[in-house]
Amino acid sequence: MDKNSKHKKAMEKQKAAVDAAILDADSEQSVVLLLTGEGKGKSSSAFGMVLRALGYEQKVAVIQFIKGKQLSGEEIYIKQHLPAIPFYQMATGFTWDTQDREKDTAAAVRTWSEAEKHLQDKQLDLLILDELTYMLAYQYLDEEQVIEAIRKRSPQLSVVITGRGGGSALRALADTVSEIKNSKHAYEAGIKARKGVDY
Amino acid sequence: MDKNSKHKKAMEKQKAAVDAAILDADSEQSVVLLLTGEGKGKSSSAFGMVLRALGYEQKVAVIQFIKGKQLSGEEIYIKQHLPAIPFYQMATGFTWDTQDREKDTAAAVRTWSEAEKHLQDKQLDLLILDELTYMLAYQYLDEEQVIEAIRKRSPQLSVVITGRGGGSALRALADTVSEIKNSKHAYEAGIKARKGVDY
Repeated sequence: MDKNSKHKKAMEKQKAAVDAAILDADSEQSVVLLLTGEGKGKSSSAFGMVLRALGYEQKVAVIQFIKGKQLSGEEIYIKQHLPAIPFYQMATGFTWDTQDREKDTAAAVRTWSEAEKHLQDKQLDLLILDELTYMLAYQYLDEEQVIEAIRKRSPQLSVVITGRGGGSALRALADTVSEIKNSKHAYEAGIKARKGVDY
Repeated sequence: MDKNSKHKKAMEKQKAAVDAAILDADSEQSVVLLLTGEGKGKSSSAFGMVLRALGYEQKVAVIQFIKGKQLSGEEIYIKQHLPAIPFYQMATGFTWDTQDREKDTAAAVRTWSEAEKHLQDKQLDLLILDELTYMLAYQYLDEEQVIEAIRKRSPQLSVVITGRGGGSALRALADTVSEIKNSKHAYEAGIKARKGVDY
C-alpha cells in the first residue's frame, strides 16, 4: 500500500471509532465540568467556554471565589463589553494576602450565596464557579452543602468549576474532569508573567 | 496553636513562596505556550486567553488548523462580535472526514502561510494556532520550518498552540507546556456533547 492509501485507511478507521463513540452518547443533559490540576489554563478554559456559550446566545454567569484586587484581562473584557453577564467576585484579594481566616470564611459564604441563587436560575445555561475548589480545601465552605446545591441545580444548567484539587466528592459529582498538568512553566526559566497571557 | 493562627502561619508561608517565585522571574518577554494532552479544555483555554488579551486592548489573531464544517460557539462569537480580529480557518472539515492526504496537505500549507504572515506582524500581541500539532503529526507541514518560523517571530508576540501531542521539538521551543489529562469524560457515561460546553 502506498502512503496515501495507508493514510486513507487509518483515517477511515479513526473516523469509524469517533462516530461510534458519538452515537453511543445519546443522553441529552447538562453537565458538571471540573477543570483541575496545577497547570496553566483552568480559568482561561472556563472563560473560553463563556465565549462559546455566548456564540449561541446562551445565558452565562460567572462567580469568582479568589482573585487578586486587580482585574485580569478577561474580567475587564466582560465588565466593559458584556455588562449584561452577572459577574460576582469575592474580591478580598488572594487569601494568602489576607491571612485572616474568619474574614475569608465570611467572604466565601457570602459569595456562595450568590452561587446558590444562580444554581436555581431556570434561564441560565452556563455557570462558572472559578476557583471554588480552594474554598472547599480551606474549609471556608461546607463541602456537603456545596455538592448538594450543585446536584440539585436547575436541570438545564451546566456548571464549570475550576481550581486545584477539588476533593473526591466533587470529582464523583462531575461528569467530566480535566486535569491540567504543568509539564513546563515559563517562570521556571525566569520569564515574567505576561499581561494578556498569564493574567 | 489554634486553628486560625495555624491557618495564618500556613498562609504566610505560602505567600512568601509565591512572592519569591514571582520576584525571581524578571525577564520580560513574549512566550510560546503549548496546550496539549487528550483532555477537554485546550481550545477553550486558548479562546479564554483571547478574551484576556482583548481586555487589555491587545491585538489578537486566531488561526485554526482543523475544525468541523459547522462553526462552534466561540467562532460564531468572534465572527459576529469581534469582526476586527483576523480569524482564519483551514475549513476542510476534520481530516478523518476528508480522507484525502494531498488535499489536506495543500490546505495545511495554505493555512500555514497565513500563520507565517502573522508571526512577522510587529503590532500583534497574541497569535492562537489552534490544533496545529495535528499538522505536524500527520506530516502535512514541515516541522523544522514551523519551529523556525515560531522561533524567529516578531519579538513582542506570544503564541498559543493547541492540540494533542506536539512532538519534542515543539515542547523544547515552548516556554510553558500544559498537559490536559482526561480524568473522566461525560461521554463515557453516555452523555451527549453539549452546545455551549463541548462545541
